[in-house]
Formats: sequence, structure tokens, C-alpha cells
Amino acid sequence: MSKMRDVRMRGFAERADVEEVERFLERSVRPLPAEPVPVGESPGRVLAADVFAEVDIPGFPRAAMDGYAVCGEDTFGASGYDPLSLEVIGEALPGHGFRGKLGTGQAVRVMTGAPVPDGADAVVMAEVCEERDGRVEVSEPVAPRKNVGAVAEDIRRGEVVLRTGRRLRPQDAGVLASLGMAVVSCVRRPRVQLVITGDELLPVGSRPEGCRIVDSNSVMLSALVARDGGEILPFEILPDRVQVIRQALERKEADVVLVSGGSSVGKEDHAPPLVAELGSLDFHGVAMRPSSPAGCGRIDGRIVFLLPGNPVSCLCAYEFFAGPSIRALGGRSRAWPHRRVRVPLVRKIASAIGRTDYVRVVIEDGRAAPVAISGASILSSTVRASGAVIVPRELEGMPEGAEVEVLLYDDELPLGEAS
Amino acid sequence: MSKMRDVRMRGFAERADVEEVERFLERSVRPLPAEPVPVGESPGRVLAADVFAEVDIPGFPRAAMDGYAVCGEDTFGASGYDPLSLEVIGEALPGHGFRGKLGTGQAVRVMTGAPVPDGADAVVMAEVCEERDGRVEVSEPVAPRKNVGAVAEDIRRGEVVLRTGRRLRPQDAGVLASLGMAVVSCVRRPRVQLVITGDELLPVGSRPEGCRIVDSNSVMLSALVARDGGEILPFEILPDRVQVIRQALERKEADVVLVSGGSSVGKEDHAPPLVAELGSLDFHGVAMRPSSPAGCGRIDGRIVFLLPGNPVSCLCAYEFFAGPSIRALGGRSRAWPHRRVRVPLVRKIASAIGRTDYVRVVIEDGRAAPVAISGASILSSTVRASGAVIVPRELEGMPEGAEVEVLLYDDELPLGEAS
Repeated sequence: MSKMRDVRMRGFAERADVEEVERFLERSVRPLPAEPVPVGESPGRVLAADVFAEVDIPGFPRAAMDGYAVCGEDTFGASGYDPLSLEVIGEALPGHGFRGKLGTGQAVRVMTGAPVPDGADAVVMAEVCEERDGRVEVSEPVAPRKNVGAVAEDIRRGEVVLRTGRRLRPQDAGVLASLGMAVVSCVRRPRVQLVITGDELLPVGSRPEGCRIVDSNSVMLSALVARDGGEILPFEILPDRVQVIRQALERKEADVVLVSGGSSVGKEDHAPPLVAELGSLDFHGVAMRPSSPAGCGRIDGRIVFLLPGNPVSCLCAYEFFAGPSIRALGGRSRAWPHRRVRVPLVRKIASAIGRTDYVRVVIEDGRAAPVAISGASILSSTVRASGAVIVPRELEGMPEGAEVEVLLYDDELPLGEAS
Repeated sequence: MSKMRDVRMRGFAERADVEEVERFLERSVRPLPAEPVPVGESPGRVLAADVFAEVDIPGFPRAAMDGYAVCGEDTFGASGYDPLSLEVIGEALPGHGFRGKLGTGQAVRVMTGAPVPDGADAVVMAEVCEERDGRVEVSEPVAPRKNVGAVAEDIRRGEVVLRTGRRLRPQDAGVLASLGMAVVSCVRRPRVQLVITGDELLPVGSRPEGCRIVDSNSVMLSALVARDGGEILPFEILPDRVQVIRQALERKEADVVLVSGGSSVGKEDHAPPLVAELGSLDFHGVAMRPSSPAGCGRIDGRIVFLLPGNPVSCLCAYEFFAGPSIRALGGRSRAWPHRRVRVPLVRKIASAIGRTDYVRVVIEDGRAAPVAISGASILSSTVRASGAVIVPRELEGMPEGAEVEVLLYDDELPLGEAS
């Protein structure tokens, strides 16, 4: 308890600035170690090391067209009026080469992807050929090397194909497969333990009853963590009891612990003193709205985020602090993961100097309107909103007409923006 | 075979326009029917029906702060110099209400989320209270209704909370959970059958050997289908044999069939005549580069896409035709699923009137440079590129300096663009 004053039922003596907490997290969070990932599961993952090609692609001269492998020089002068006739001495199919060598005046029927036989240096495309009785009439000349994929023209053995930190695209995984890789070294996905506390909470799928409400934060947080590349460990809703919450905080499997509820200054807010006791409570209370009771600390290398139980505060604290950290642990950019747009404000936003505000706005007709609500529990405001505007602590607010940056809540097109 | 001419080893007589194929697919593809989805798995899914609230949220007057439930009027005049003293008659915790009724001069200790007891109409926050010996000194007045979440202030029973077609956000799923829903009606995810053919193909994880190459398209296509909300059915690499491919095309589980390889005009290209025989081959051969051998058809209500085996052509044909259709089947927007940026061209792009070109570009210093490559097999070009520029068929190309729209390959920030 040395590092904190017990704030329960007393309030926060002093709140940290949002930027102070962000700087602390930037210093404290580094990408996790690498793990081998099967190439088929690699799209979306982040490379932990440069990938070098161990083979040439193509590894053999490869027909890039369906047609006839020829010696290009043989076809010079061919035309529709004066087609050239070549002897068809065989066929090369993908995976089944022609085993002989092609001489002057000869052709081998080839399909796209087949190895071009020895002696041939070009493929004349099927559309300008007419085959009959063992011979093919070619009605257009083809230059040497035309329609042949040369060895290593795509990728040369030894070259760096993809660099550390790359978030793998579908086609990147295709290239890794082509290179003959079975696994690839990726940054391990952060494992996230949810600690959902509250005697009032019913599990997802229940009907709210009396003064008991349904746990919605675990559903929302699970989806946010998945979006940010993390993996949710099994969890259950915990009662507001010190011993039970202590056990959850002591579990060692996680890289990140998200405590939802029981994190403020109420009598039953056991998490903050427990974090201080088991590790360090680096911040508790932030000069922001909503989410002022947010906090973070560390226990044995795990980063613990104290997220208020109120759904909007929980979302806000997650997006400010936990989300960027989970992305960074997984090797991704800390930056906002959806698009941002700059639009003018329909109405002014009031804030206060010294406090960072997280304001939900609706974008309509290319302008941002603050969602008129009060209270951090109004989760429906984040459903109605297109995204959020951050009012930094040095501003008292933002006037009507001011151009603001909106952090969009998803990648769907907001109303009023051209497609 | 009535609907097509067999183009094998003869080439395409006439190619369809990209727009013609797109219009056909827009007419032919409608969202799939609904299925119930557990709320916890709903983020990212598309609503198949409006969601009405069956309960009020909050369902009871709810403390929005830790502090003391009071009758607001009782606190008028309280100040730091002249605190007001109230009798603390009990406590209300989240999930555990206070069972009595509060009278004049009385207070009940409450925590955020607790029901506000009868007789109280406001919560005075803990920070301005000092409790001792069964009484609390309040040093600030609180207005009636302050810090109390009124019944239904977030969501009113009967109101429409989310509308058909909404792609559910994390917070949307939170709201559905709060409303006591266990499942929600979503558009079924399209089931996609991959038909990967080629005697030359080795399974992912193999080392390329001789003229055999590794199947990279299945890895790439699986990731693209997942991105677009589809579900890949089990598949295996098929040999270039008519009977085997016929069986694969006749399987009924799929909504969409993606044929990769064997779809052009080569001798071993069995898929196009099979599609014509089993259903209809609506298009085969498109005036585009790459991917001109692409096609599509229908078999018993399944949409079949013929994707060239060349990886870049495969990607291009997927993005033009299959991707938008899979998204539309799942109730999503057909539009390009990543961001687009408008930037000037560093170098001209040559094309031809009457043909749509798909040109890979790298964005550097805020300008787009075409990736200098030839050939549709250069998958590494799609790895180096930031995205693609589409040159429409009515243009001969695009001049240096022209402003072009780049369809970005992912949502990472391209070089040269401000964050």
C-alpha cells in the first residue's frame, strides 16, 4: 500500500493527465516475443523477423500463356496471310514437363504454368495458333522470352521478401506459401484476462431483473480485444470479494489484465488497493471525462488496466489506454485502428481546461453533431454515434464550425461522406 | 454446352466488359437468409432485422456516482464552511438495494450502479462527504435528479435500438447483452467452397520441387473470404481430372464456389464447360488485365467464380467479382473494404481503350508509382504495392501527374500519408 493512498470513499486527491498515462504506457509496453505461426493462419499477424526467400520463384522457366513453346526466332515473319507451320513434338502441362529438347521448326503444346522445354525460349499464345495433324500453324510472330516467366523473375533466392513488423496481408501469406514455408515467425498475440466484477451482474444471455443488470462489458471488451489482435483467456463474472479478485489478479497466464468494475473509489472497489499490494498501481484517477476513475498498474510484468464499470467509461478507457497497449504488445501500430475524418462541428462542445474529453458525435451531411447525452452509462450513445472527438486538456471546448477530427467507430462509411 | 462455345485452345471470341459482369452480379446476388447468432459472437455480423428493446435501461433509478443517496432539497445551502449533517440509515450496493425508504434528513450510502432508494432523488458524490459515527457531513448541495440514472434514460422499452443491415460494433453487442438478448438475428455468413485444381500444386507447407509449385491461392483466398465475412468449407487440392472437378462443382453445401486454376482456354481447363453443363456459364473471358480468363456462372443457386490460377490474376478477379458478391451475400456493402486515397501519379500508366486495367502502385511521398512488372504471376508485386489503381475501359491510360484513386490493400497507413 506504500505507493498509494487508499482513495476509497474519499475521492482522488489528484488526477493524472491523459498524456502522462499514455507516455508511461509507451515506455512500459514493448512487442511480445515471437512464436512460429502456420502460414495458413498468418494473415493479420505481425512478422517478428525479416523473411528471406529460400528458393527462386519461378524455380523453372514457366509458360505464362496457354499455347505453344517455340524458339521465338522461328516465328519471325509469320502472319495471318502467311502462317508458319511447326511440328508439334509433344506437350508440357503444369506439373508434367516435356522431357525432350526442342529443335528448329518444332513446337511443344504448353499450358499456363507448365515448364517451357529446353530449346524453347517463347510461348506463342493459343489464340493465334491452329493445330492439326501433328503440326501447328502460327499466324503471329513471338519475340524470344515473350510469355515465359524467367527463373527468379518474381522472387530471387536470398532476397528479403517481407520485413519485420509487417502485418501480413492475404497475398503476403500466398507468397510465404509459394516460398515453401510452413511456419513463419510472428509476434505472439497478447493474452488478455478479463476480471469482470460486480454482485449486480448477470451473465450474457440473461434477462435483467430488479436491480441486477447484464454484464455487457465482457462482450464489448472481448470484441475490442479481438479487433486489436489479442486473445481472451477464459473468464467468469466475479463477486465483489477481495479474495476472489486477488486470485484473479494473481493468475499468471495473461500479458494484460482488464479489470471492469470495482475500480473506482467506492467501498467495494477492491481492485486498486490489490494492484498496489501485488505490484504497483502506477496511475489511478485520470483528468478525463468520462472514465476519470480509470487507472493502470503492473503485477509481475502483466499490465493491469482498471476500467470503470460504466459501459461508456469502460469503452473510453479501453480506447485511450488498453487498446493501444494491446496493439503495441502484438507488434501493431498504437494508432486508432479505424479511419478518421475531419469535419466541421454543428454545435459547440463544452469542456474544461485541464481535462481531456471524449465526446461522441454523429456525422450527418458532412458535419459532426455531439450526441446530446449526460452520464457515462449511456451506452446507446456509442451506438448512435459515428465516432468520437477528443477535446484536449488545453482547450475549454470547441466552437461551432470548428474543424474536428472524428475517430470513427468502424470502417463503414459514415453518412454524408462520399463513397 | 448450348450456352457457350468451347473456347479451349481457341481463345475467347469476345470478352465481356467488367461493368457488364458487375451489373450481372448486382442483379444476381441478394443477402442470404437470417440465422440466430449468440450475442457474444455477434460483433462484425450484419443484422437481419431491426432490434427492439424489450426492457428499459436502466430498469431502476441507478446511482451514477459513489456517494450518498439523498433528497436533493435537503442539501440546499450546504458548503465547506457550513456542511450539512445527515443521518446514514443504510447502504445500497450494486445488486443489493436498500430495503427501506429515506426520510427528510436521512442519507443512504450508495455505490455506482446501486439502486437509489425510495425517497431519495439525488446522489451526492463521495468526494464532498465525510462520514463518521452514523452521520455524513455534506459540504456541497446537490440538485434533485443529479447523479441518478433515471429509468429508461438510456433505452426505452419498445424503441428500435439497431436497424437491419447494421454491421455490429463491439458496443452494439454490449447493448444487445444489456437488453437481455441471448441471440440476435443476423444474415447468414456465405459458405465458400474452394475448388483448387492443378497437377502441379503441392499443399501449403511443402517445398517447391522441379516444376511443381506450392498452392498459394488457397491461403490467399481463405484470408480474403474471411475478411469479407465468408466461411471457407473444407477443401483439398484436386487433380486436373474432369470427374473430380465435376464432383466438386456438384457439392451443394456452398453458396459460392471459387474455382482457382483450370478456368482458362487451355486443354486442361475443365471448369468452364462443366459449369455450362451443370448450370449456366454466364461469362467467360473479361476485357481486363490481368484476369482476362476470369468468368462466372451459376449451378443450382450457387454462384461459381472462375479465377485464373496465376496468383495476381486470381487476386484481381477475386477483388473485382467474388469479393463484392461475398460481401453482398453476407449483407455487407459491396464497396472496397479498405481505405482509398487520392494521390497524383509519379509516372504515366499505359492501358488500352476497351480494357479495364488493374495496376499495382506503391505510394511514396504522397504519390503513386506503378510497380514495374510484367506478368500476372508476379505475386510479389502485390506485396510491394500499397494498393491498386483501376484504369477504366474508356481510357487509354493515365498521364503523369493525374490524380488517381488508390484502393489500398490494407488499413495500415501508407508511406507519405500523415497519420
